[in-house]
Amino acid sequence: MDKKSSASGDLLCGRPIERVLEEITNFHGFPAPGVVIGAVMVDWAREHIGTIEADAIVETLRCLPDALQLFTPCTLGNGWMRVLDWDRFALTLYDRTTRRGCRVWLDAGKTAAYPAIHDWFLKRVPKDAIPLETLLGKILEARRAVLSCRSVIATDFLRRPKKERIAICAGSGEAFDPRAGDCCKGCLRGGYFTLESA
Amino acid sequence: MDKKSSASGDLLCGRPIERVLEEITNFHGFPAPGVVIGAVMVDWAREHIGTIEADAIVETLRCLPDALQLFTPCTLGNGWMRVLDWDRFALTLYDRTTRRGCRVWLDAGKTAAYPAIHDWFLKRVPKDAIPLETLLGKILEARRAVLSCRSVIATDFLRRPKKERIAICAGSGEAFDPRAGDCCKGCLRGGYFTLESA
Repeated sequence: MDKKSSASGDLLCGRPIERVLEEITNFHGFPAPGVVIGAVMVDWAREHIGTIEADAIVETLRCLPDALQLFTPCTLGNGWMRVLDWDRFALTLYDRTTRRGCRVWLDAGKTAAYPAIHDWFLKRVPKDAIPLETLLGKILEARRAVLSCRSVIATDFLRRPKKERIAICAGSGEAFDPRAGDCCKGCLRGGYFTLESA
Repeated sequence: MDKKSSASGDLLCGRPIERVLEEITNFHGFPAPGVVIGAVMVDWAREHIGTIEADAIVETLRCLPDALQLFTPCTLGNGWMRVLDWDRFALTLYDRTTRRGCRVWLDAGKTAAYPAIHDWFLKRVPKDAIPLETLLGKILEARRAVLSCRSVIATDFLRRPKKERIAICAGSGEAFDPRAGDCCKGCLRGGYFTLESA
């Protein structure tokens, strides 16, 4: 597999780099290194699986979900991106029919050749020790050289069941999926808020 | 509290309605009713809390996270949006300093006055029984009339711990947060994929 940057030169996810950085800034708030390397990961995974419609699985809540949501059709709300809170900097795109796909991850072994990326990824230095510009420059220089990629077959246990029935919770008075139990999960688990007296 | 649409008439989340629908289509894939009503919910919650920087909590994986990600600065990857898989069509925006905020939900009782919305929300008819255009028209007619809103104080147990240390997992060889245990969560819980023979 070709580990160099895409043949289209300075394009990433089909866009000029400047546009990638701009879209990340608009959505995520700033050009976070994790989202920028995420764009490189998405670019490689998409190239690997071809132009088929793909579902996504992401193995961390940090940064990477935003790269998937910006640069693939998969979002959290449309159900095509599943999120595992595993704190691994990895993502998989797979054909939802054949379940064949590609897993790409930021490879700690390979980052050793890029000290700025290595120190940032493994938190060997305080967050502000490496200027953002330096880190982004190194990421865009290294691109796929710090990643690994494997062909995988996704197992299907993450498929989300269709919502078939709606009930009104006797506790909260709100609509919920009755498969959750007798009450909605807010009542079962306790809320995350208290009511403010008016 | 004013339950009518925003005083700015046909603006929603500070944009013309057509622009809202276009942004939803680009991100989510189509103008899903759940994301459109989500935009109305976000609009009300933001008006309620004012212009302060707010964190978001959303109580379902379906549709609503995309409205928050499009129409607030909160995204899954930047950590400002927390997602509860509770299947309740509700969201909260709150000031991250004072924890005071506003919870808005689609109110099954109030939707009774809008049969198309009611039947869609409570799944009383098959998904294709109500044409999308009809449903969107009713949502944009009803707007806040089908919602409820309460002032809340968010309790803080959802705050995400800062990642302080990174280890390399002896099982997978990948970087992970050692607070997860001796191995990364992928090794602990079993993966979601098998490797394809090359």
